[in-house]
Amino acid sequence: MLKRDENGYGKLVRQLVCGDMRTAARLITMAENGATEMNGLMKEIYPHTGKAMVIGITGSGGAGKSSLIDQLIYQYRKLGKRVGVIAVDPSSPFSGGAVLGDRIRFQRHTRDEGVYLRSLASRGYLGGLARATTDAVRIMDAMGNDVLIIETLGVGQDEIDIVHVAETRVLVLTPGMGDDIQAMKAGTMEIADIIVLNKFDLAGAESCLRTLEATLSHRMTREHRDWLPPVIPTISCSTQDQEITGIGGLITGIESHQSYLTQSRNREKVQEKRIEHELGLILKNEVEKLVFAGLKGSNKKHCLIKSIMMKERDPYSAVEELLSDAIPK
Amino acid sequence: MLKRDENGYGKLVRQLVCGDMRTAARLITMAENGATEMNGLMKEIYPHTGKAMVIGITGSGGAGKSSLIDQLIYQYRKLGKRVGVIAVDPSSPFSGGAVLGDRIRFQRHTRDEGVYLRSLASRGYLGGLARATTDAVRIMDAMGNDVLIIETLGVGQDEIDIVHVAETRVLVLTPGMGDDIQAMKAGTMEIADIIVLNKFDLAGAESCLRTLEATLSHRMTREHRDWLPPVIPTISCSTQDQEITGIGGLITGIESHQSYLTQSRNREKVQEKRIEHELGLILKNEVEKLVFAGLKGSNKKHCLIKSIMMKERDPYSAVEELLSDAIPK
Repeated sequence: MLKRDENGYGKLVRQLVCGDMRTAARLITMAENGATEMNGLMKEIYPHTGKAMVIGITGSGGAGKSSLIDQLIYQYRKLGKRVGVIAVDPSSPFSGGAVLGDRIRFQRHTRDEGVYLRSLASRGYLGGLARATTDAVRIMDAMGNDVLIIETLGVGQDEIDIVHVAETRVLVLTPGMGDDIQAMKAGTMEIADIIVLNKFDLAGAESCLRTLEATLSHRMTREHRDWLPPVIPTISCSTQDQEITGIGGLITGIESHQSYLTQSRNREKVQEKRIEHELGLILKNEVEKLVFAGLKGSNKKHCLIKSIMMKERDPYSAVEELLSDAIPK
Repeated sequence: MLKRDENGYGKLVRQLVCGDMRTAARLITMAENGATEMNGLMKEIYPHTGKAMVIGITGSGGAGKSSLIDQLIYQYRKLGKRVGVIAVDPSSPFSGGAVLGDRIRFQRHTRDEGVYLRSLASRGYLGGLARATTDAVRIMDAMGNDVLIIETLGVGQDEIDIVHVAETRVLVLTPGMGDDIQAMKAGTMEIADIIVLNKFDLAGAESCLRTLEATLSHRMTREHRDWLPPVIPTISCSTQDQEITGIGGLITGIESHQSYLTQSRNREKVQEKRIEHELGLILKNEVEKLVFAGLKGSNKKHCLIKSIMMKERDPYSAVEELLSDAIPK
């Protein structure tokens, strides 16, 4: 439990704004656990946010997101920027359970004070992961990071919610795996501002690139969009025959999209949508907490489950009863 | 809008129970759209459910779920069973956007009256997909299907929620793709009752099989479980050199798990958990509808968004205000 003195959470927020990593870690854990103090805290943190550039990196497992992020960190650090990474992908080397050399690869950054890595895990079916990610982005923004990278798998509703938190959304595909087709079908491509075609040394890469470019430019004409997502070929892992390439192109692509956001007449509309989305996430989360707090350890729920098992009643009327108890009219 | 006469939805429910496909299609669309009548309808449908065997098929895109389901349909039809399929995977050939031969392959079943195929799509970030799936399962159960197959990608929170709706959960992996490692890391393996190692003709299949079996048996000893998930090698697509194999083994595996559920002393516990989970899904969905109905087209929300954009206020206090309007204390 967190102590709130007559000045609110002032001391804690000051420590965060000074870039204290331990304070940030503690606050993000609270967000992850859906702590009751979060709203009060976030209200005080909010005025210190809005400076970081928020990038979302989305792609299926094995597309090379981690090595790409590793390269981005490296490049942004060379430019003197402070970088924060939030990994929501359960298979990410950041998120624990790393295999082979993954974890070792990232160790070069863990000793760097200008890099802050953090993973977020899903906690049971009540969700709240998207809300926790929004809070974590704000916290890492307030602590003074210039660049924030969110890593997700981009499948499933919670994931799509998370992608909307980012300003510039990068979709990572690989040639020949059918990834491009899957992404088109799943609608993931719709929300990408930049497409990275990673592992460009694989067979069929050139034709995959041309197909993607044709698809995107066709969609742009059809839907009268004013931002054409560039397709950027990269190789994010060096091998015996191949060097790492394309990272500079990706950084330029991100910059272009950021200045499009700043200059575009649509900027206000984009921002409005993002805020509306965030309000939805917070609201959803608040309501869930409200209802489930009322039911926790409720004996009534247990009795209802028993009578549903006996086929004495149905789950739908049971929920109505639980609901009218939790929210008195 | 649906007319409810003095006998409730009696006529509609009778048509459904007689196996009328058009009635089923209409009801599932209503569930998908979160129609207000759903609770009333589901209460009347509920007593007609509980006969179908519900199988969940989970696995990443490209694992061969669709061809495996195609084979399962074929085998169950030979046994004279009526089969229903609910595809929640956005990349599934059922779910539209099919490429190449996928859709053609399934056409052999679309003309079969004993097979009912249906896809469910996610509708915006308010979720409700898991709730819609639960309803669809009930509807297809009431219409007289003996076997219900739910196809999902198994990643993301909404997806995991859906997997819990099935009694027997089958995880489809392929050798050498790192799928096994990804599944272990993502915790998907935890919820699998049966593991299918598809594309068993690929290199490394034998060693992948042994690793999986060792992992599962180790976990079983450690966690004192009384069901050891079998690993079943299959080839679900025939090629020039390979015939389709292992489907019989999969059907036997599903049967074994079903009789385990019937005989096990844990059966009651398993059922209790499933009902509790379902209550959670319905409750969550009801609360969301309640709150968002109150806000729809609300001018207040628009004003709040504007003032957040102007940095005059923060999203957290805005949500508190919206909430106290929607749910009077």
